[in-house]
Amino acid sequence: LARVLALGQESAGIVTSDGESSQAFKVHKGMGLINHVFNADSLKKLYVSNLGIGHTRYSTSGISELQNCQPFVVETLHGKIAVAHNGELTNAVRLRRKLMRHGVGLSTSSDSELITQLLAFTPPLENDDTADWVARIKNLMNETPTSYSLLIMHKDIIYAVRDPYGNRPLCIGRLIPVGDMNGKGKDNSETEGWVVSSESCSFLSIGAEYYREVLPGEIVKISRYDVQTLDVVPRPEGDPSAFCIFEYVYFARPDSIFEGQMVYSVRRRCGQQLAIEAPVEADLVSTVPESATPAALGYAQKCGLPYVEVLCKNRYVGRTFIQPNMRLRQLGVAKKFGVLSDNFKGKRVVIIDDSIVRGNTISPIIKLLRESGAKEVHIRVASPPIRFPCYMGINIPTKEELIANRPEFHDLANYIGADSVVYLSVEGLVSSVQESIKARKENENSLKTQKSRVGKIGHCTACLTGEYPVELEW
Amino acid sequence: LARVLALGQESAGIVTSDGESSQAFKVHKGMGLINHVFNADSLKKLYVSNLGIGHTRYSTSGISELQNCQPFVVETLHGKIAVAHNGELTNAVRLRRKLMRHGVGLSTSSDSELITQLLAFTPPLENDDTADWVARIKNLMNETPTSYSLLIMHKDIIYAVRDPYGNRPLCIGRLIPVGDMNGKGKDNSETEGWVVSSESCSFLSIGAEYYREVLPGEIVKISRYDVQTLDVVPRPEGDPSAFCIFEYVYFARPDSIFEGQMVYSVRRRCGQQLAIEAPVEADLVSTVPESATPAALGYAQKCGLPYVEVLCKNRYVGRTFIQPNMRLRQLGVAKKFGVLSDNFKGKRVVIIDDSIVRGNTISPIIKLLRESGAKEVHIRVASPPIRFPCYMGINIPTKEELIANRPEFHDLANYIGADSVVYLSVEGLVSSVQESIKARKENENSLKTQKSRVGKIGHCTACLTGEYPVELEW
Amino acid sequence: LARVLALGQESAGIVTSDGESSQAFKVHKGMGLINHVFNADSLKKLYVSNLGIGHTRYSTSGISELQNCQPFVVETLHGKIAVAHNGELTNAVRLRRKLMRHGVGLSTSSDSELITQLLAFTPPLENDDTADWVARIKNLMNETPTSYSLLIMHKDIIYAVRDPYGNRPLCIGRLIPVGDMNGKGKDNSETEGWVVSSESCSFLSIGAEYYREVLPGEIVKISRYDVQTLDVVPRPEGDPSAFCIFEYVYFARPDSIFEGQMVYSVRRRCGQQLAIEAPVEADLVSTVPESATPAALGYAQKCGLPYVEVLCKNRYVGRTFIQPNMRLRQLGVAKKFGVLSDNFKGKRVVIIDDSIVRGNTISPIIKLLRESGAKEVHIRVASPPIRFPCYMGINIPTKEELIANRPEFHDLANYIGADSVVYLSVEGLVSSVQESIKARKENENSLKTQKSRVGKIGHCTACLTGEYPVELEW
Amino acid sequence: LARVLALGQESAGIVTSDGESSQAFKVHKGMGLINHVFNADSLKKLYVSNLGIGHTRYSTSGISELQNCQPFVVETLHGKIAVAHNGELTNAVRLRRKLMRHGVGLSTSSDSELITQLLAFTPPLENDDTADWVARIKNLMNETPTSYSLLIMHKDIIYAVRDPYGNRPLCIGRLIPVGDMNGKGKDNSETEGWVVSSESCSFLSIGAEYYREVLPGEIVKISRYDVQTLDVVPRPEGDPSAFCIFEYVYFARPDSIFEGQMVYSVRRRCGQQLAIEAPVEADLVSTVPESATPAALGYAQKCGLPYVEVLCKNRYVGRTFIQPNMRLRQLGVAKKFGVLSDNFKGKRVVIIDDSIVRGNTISPIIKLLRESGAKEVHIRVASPPIRFPCYMGINIPTKEELIANRPEFHDLANYIGADSVVYLSVEGLVSSVQESIKARKENENSLKTQKSRVGKIGHCTACLTGEYPVELEW
Repeated sequence: LARVLALGQESAGIVTSDGESSQAFKVHKGMGLINHVFNADSLKKLYVSNLGIGHTRYSTSGISELQNCQPFVVETLHGKIAVAHNGELTNAVRLRRKLMRHGVGLSTSSDSELITQLLAFTPPLENDDTADWVARIKNLMNETPTSYSLLIMHKDIIYAVRDPYGNRPLCIGRLIPVGDMNGKGKDNSETEGWVVSSESCSFLSIGAEYYREVLPGEIVKISRYDVQTLDVVPRPEGDPSAFCIFEYVYFARPDSIFEGQMVYSVRRRCGQQLAIEAPVEADLVSTVPESATPAALGYAQKCGLPYVEVLCKNRYVGRTFIQPNMRLRQLGVAKKFGVLSDNFKGKRVVIIDDSIVRGNTISPIIKLLRESGAKEVHIRVASPPIRFPCYMGINIPTKEELIANRPEFHDLANYIGADSVVYLSVEGLVSSVQESIKARKENENSLKTQKSRVGKIGHCTACLTGEYPVELEW
Repeated sequence: LARVLALGQESAGIVTSDGESSQAFKVHKGMGLINHVFNADSLKKLYVSNLGIGHTRYSTSGISELQNCQPFVVETLHGKIAVAHNGELTNAVRLRRKLMRHGVGLSTSSDSELITQLLAFTPPLENDDTADWVARIKNLMNETPTSYSLLIMHKDIIYAVRDPYGNRPLCIGRLIPVGDMNGKGKDNSETEGWVVSSESCSFLSIGAEYYREVLPGEIVKISRYDVQTLDVVPRPEGDPSAFCIFEYVYFARPDSIFEGQMVYSVRRRCGQQLAIEAPVEADLVSTVPESATPAALGYAQKCGLPYVEVLCKNRYVGRTFIQPNMRLRQLGVAKKFGVLSDNFKGKRVVIIDDSIVRGNTISPIIKLLRESGAKEVHIRVASPPIRFPCYMGINIPTKEELIANRPEFHDLANYIGADSVVYLSVEGLVSSVQESIKARKENENSLKTQKSRVGKIGHCTACLTGEYPVELEW
Repeated sequence: LARVLALGQESAGIVTSDGESSQAFKVHKGMGLINHVFNADSLKKLYVSNLGIGHTRYSTSGISELQNCQPFVVETLHGKIAVAHNGELTNAVRLRRKLMRHGVGLSTSSDSELITQLLAFTPPLENDDTADWVARIKNLMNETPTSYSLLIMHKDIIYAVRDPYGNRPLCIGRLIPVGDMNGKGKDNSETEGWVVSSESCSFLSIGAEYYREVLPGEIVKISRYDVQTLDVVPRPEGDPSAFCIFEYVYFARPDSIFEGQMVYSVRRRCGQQLAIEAPVEADLVSTVPESATPAALGYAQKCGLPYVEVLCKNRYVGRTFIQPNMRLRQLGVAKKFGVLSDNFKGKRVVIIDDSIVRGNTISPIIKLLRESGAKEVHIRVASPPIRFPCYMGINIPTKEELIANRPEFHDLANYIGADSVVYLSVEGLVSSVQESIKARKENENSLKTQKSRVGKIGHCTACLTGEYPVELEW
Repeated sequence: LARVLALGQESAGIVTSDGESSQAFKVHKGMGLINHVFNADSLKKLYVSNLGIGHTRYSTSGISELQNCQPFVVETLHGKIAVAHNGELTNAVRLRRKLMRHGVGLSTSSDSELITQLLAFTPPLENDDTADWVARIKNLMNETPTSYSLLIMHKDIIYAVRDPYGNRPLCIGRLIPVGDMNGKGKDNSETEGWVVSSESCSFLSIGAEYYREVLPGEIVKISRYDVQTLDVVPRPEGDPSAFCIFEYVYFARPDSIFEGQMVYSVRRRCGQQLAIEAPVEADLVSTVPESATPAALGYAQKCGLPYVEVLCKNRYVGRTFIQPNMRLRQLGVAKKFGVLSDNFKGKRVVIIDDSIVRGNTISPIIKLLRESGAKEVHIRVASPPIRFPCYMGINIPTKEELIANRPEFHDLANYIGADSVVYLSVEGLVSSVQESIKARKENENSLKTQKSRVGKIGHCTACLTGEYPVELEW
């Protein structure tokens, strides 16, 4: 089962193929969390084979509707194709108009239908008796530079594609043969199958192991026993790659691997770097559980301060059970956390958070800690402030909502009630991310081949700096 | 709210328009009965205006999938259109291939998406700066002769279209102004709005009254206060119209009006005709409740026999409550009916049924009546035997399942356990249907204008005779 | 599976026993319609044996709560008993106080828990080492005269009990051996099992046949192969039995049998009697579908007028689909019925209804018929007006809501918009009900034994006359 | 809203009172998680006042049925009472028999109905014209020594009761007046209300603060503005109190407070004690997230080894989504955790777990760590092995399932695949729990009064040692 697991939870879908006839796709989609959309029955119907693609979705450009559910399936002159897409096209408006001018009615607002129809349409079809899907995919990649990771299924083949800038992640896993489970025989030649996902962390839970990333611009053909690079579409001369740096900061699970490094390690380095950039005299370092814990441990270690837990998650509180009333609105976030007051009473506390987006989460936490006896509360944020919208697939609040664009930002510590607050610098973040990539480049000869194909390595920091990797079209 | 109410219950959808921008369609669709798909919340979201089209569906050609739910909405160069379709195209395969050859990917197997994309595609679009929707609709009607009743919504206009053969029904109702509710002021000039439906019976329940049918081939433009014939596309010279005769026999609700006559009246005439064709010496006439009751009353009256109830519907029995076991399988239909044995003990009974399709419903009823004391049980069927598949929108069992195509048909009375069984003749059915239409033609001068536009009147009896109104393409 | 099927649909429950240990009851209950409460899984868990009792409920005295769901199961010193109860005790308040004075906490407001705890409590328990359930049941019957039909399950025995006045129905059915299904072998000696129900109509649908009624005051012991009368508790000297006459008029299904006659036949006789009491010069007789149809056919036959259908049920309209608005509120009942106007245009119509309780159902029907062309509309009601509350298990609107107690009643025809309206007399109803019972008493010698045990036959007409069969206690 | 929050999640219920009439209880109960049982509608119906009790349940003695849902409500001669109960009676069988001998039918198998009926029954009721509920509660406490924490609601009063051994927790919180939210005015005299709960951690999330524990044997009367001790029922001479030590080890949330100390602090001390009892030469200390983290931090600090995360929770994996197959069964727990391999590759790892009950959770974790590069894996368990059943309210696997009672226990390290495994000693656990209690006793004079009432302090270690605080009756 090869699949794309995107980050979101608005809708989910799976398409499977019996691998022989392109007519025999089985489709199941729905709105909501993946566990609501699928059950034993619907999965059973999908099990016609071991070949399929899936998708979960957190809509960015498309309005949230069932119609927009991926994967998209269309029948073409050369059989059905199914397409799963993660990302957002920077020139979608122009491409939509182009297609409609050719008389194609578009039934959804999603970029993914757009990609699917573009694949069905290009190029001159009257003469195209055999479907050259690779040519069609390359044409698509020339039409739109970024951002997309794609799975395209036709008959018994799945094409895995990453845009030339490598903006969205995509990686390949190998199903571990059952005989290998005991840790022996890893080098046996037989492979049970391949899986593809946005995040490598999903492999372990389905019995697969990390194999490699799809490279920026690469078109990979996946069949049952074979993973084969068909082509690598280059970027314009001089453009560095532009993998989304926010995946490291916030979205990805800590055990995921991007560009050869574990996300957890990057986050811990961010904490260490933050300790260098913004030290503070205090008694203990703690975290807003759970995403900031690696950075907090890194900060504590670098500073030589003890790491102590000050909050615990409140698993008993359901959202609907307790009716919101004035009392509880005033209490705010207290509902979500329990407070371990004995651990910090009378102490000076440094709280590491992974990001401050709107500022309304950290503020009640600070109040809660003070009321429970903290002498000082210093906030250190393990990423730079977000100031700009993302047009490449990440759902970021509007500019007006971002705390970094509001007047309160000038006196942020006071606004959120902290004794001090400091963000990690953009340079600090970029060096935390790139440090080990560069180190590896120099040390590992085995990477040479790949490096040459990948070109200059960079990261998309658009939401932090406003510098987008490509020009935006409207 | 102008709408098409088709007969089925597999899926349902509604699209509304704010009447100004073609971007502002609101869509809600789902699988299942209309009451499961819609609730107060989903309806509230749709109430942007008084303009909308809806659809309920019993799939015929398309496989049953959410993707196939109507109405179909696509964005074209000239704004969004929404299309609801009742029927089945006789040349769908050729039209699909034609569209795909032009590079349009089709995302569903339904004829309705096909119609929608054909409207978006034709004619040469590069030069088509203003969208002439009527030209596009006429092009579509020239591409495919039958069968379709369509509602096409664009901005603040709904086009109601019936194919040149008039195979599927479509009629227009007028919302009764609230002031008219007391029965006065019916002639006031102000109209609150228009509704369109497959069956006129739906009008009463939404506060509308029957206005008129859409004629075969007619393109009607409906705006808030106006109903206007834009064109009538003719049939090939000499071809009679071909309204589906099965709507009279089986599908339509008895209070619906087609071609100027109430369905109930046609069914009663079928019963009277059946009494002439197949009388029987008996003590009483009864019905399989409830659809055959008009025919049974007609038969009883013509014969001079008393009409007596012998069965009552069993409303207490739910399907899932009583586990099927051998005992109950042997009892069969007895679960669905209660038996009024005192009404027929020792009597000779004539049971009128509206149709015998597979033969496995009537058989246990006969057994039940005999066991409860009926002396004789004669079956009279108020329609001819079904022998051929329908390719125009009605879901009929396969040829092999139809009792009229099976060897048992030669000794049907014995097979179902009846003392005798006789079907209505095709001629008898056709004359029961056409009798009052012809009478009215001669008597009513007011119909002259319409008649000239409608051409020669006929009915599609393909499922009974195998004579299809147009040649079938594959 | 022996069971009580009461009339209601507020809750449902089934208890089964493995027949050996009184600890091994399986229970499943829930709120809502029986099909919502039970599914394949819950039924499977209940199938420990062929012994069980069930209950569906339309609450009368008890507030509608899950706690009140029947059957009630309690553990006593002599094992568990399960009790299903249909009816309402006329001295419940005094009995509750008595039990609580003995220190029993009552966890629900239902008479059924009361009955169950009374069975557990009486008589002096310290000396009662063996449980004499028959003595306990007789004690219970002496404590409370009416109204109750009971099923009491203990280990492998079910006791079926009807109160001395026979106010609520209860009858026994015999499971038809599978070999008998062909109508032969009915006299074979082997019985597959017994079922008990409030209404005999339920037997057919589960493969059983009517065996006999439980008599007023009778205690019947039912085991797998045996039905045995243990005792018949008499009424006070001179009191006639008091079976609820409203079961004939309104509640029971037409194919049910009470006191040796089919409900349908009683209703037709009511229509005939009504034709004698209140004839009218008209063109046709019709019905409000479907419950008044037998009376309408009886009336039409007695008068010599044709029976014609004027309304059909509107199955397409769901309650939630069409949002109520001013237009539809003005249309009222029109939503529920389609109108067969061709059948009565210009005619004088007699509509037979089975009862007029509040008067707000018939009124819009009359308006609808007039607007659709009826020349006159006469209403004939096949039962007398309801004026008094029921304290014996039937849920009747408050005195103030009953049309017969309101000022409008004095000019009812005008109020509902009819040309005339006449109810059946109480005497007419009683004679329609008792006519064939009396005839049978005289003709059938075989009934002699039973008659002597039943005593003087009467019917409870309290809701019509205010004459309750026993004194009410508060 | 005064309430008991028990630990379980099998069912939930709330009863509220309008505070005036004991008839006006509102009840809502259901099976399943609290968020499934309650929604906005059901809560709205309950809001007749600010007085109520609730319950969530993880059944121990009673079979899991809707009938057993708490709170129990019964009507007594002196009005309705509602009872919520946490615990399990050690002499339930004898008490049930006693009640049934008096003619009370018990409708459930739960100890909570038993308690409720005992309150309704005792003492001699004929003379008991005024209900002395305190006398009844004391009678109940004399009938049964342990274990129970109770909330009893009657009219506008709630009685909070803890058994003389204090086996189950119960504590009181004070609603923070809204004006106090800013941290000022804590000493204002006005109180908005009181809440009662098994765990103090629930207070924060509803806007309350910890007030005090209910003492062993104490009967507390709670009205809107007043918390008043009515009596303290003593234990037999010489018996120490017996609060469940497993609440500290496993059940309670870390931010809960029992006996004046935070659970988190006890767990950290257990880790420190474990480091003293069972040190190991290793490179890093880690945890099985999340419950063992306090102990792991305590162990790491005491040993001077770094605390490092090696596993992260896998939030993406739903239970139903991935079909179990042979591959995944072999992978076992890997599904629930992601592995942070870079953090421990080539290192010697000490994993702290809070308990090993069956042994089948830790085993796949160890395998996973080894396969991901751990050089050694040592297991240290921050509690002693469980060997005996609990009869006082905690659901413990059968003796046969407990790893400590199985042959594999003798070679446990080998069985689970660890390099070494050591449990905390019973003495170590007890001293970790009692250390600060004893310290406080000596230091704090303010506790003197309480101490004298509490008597000798002990803890129930029955599941570890087999020494039950009272003799068990059958």
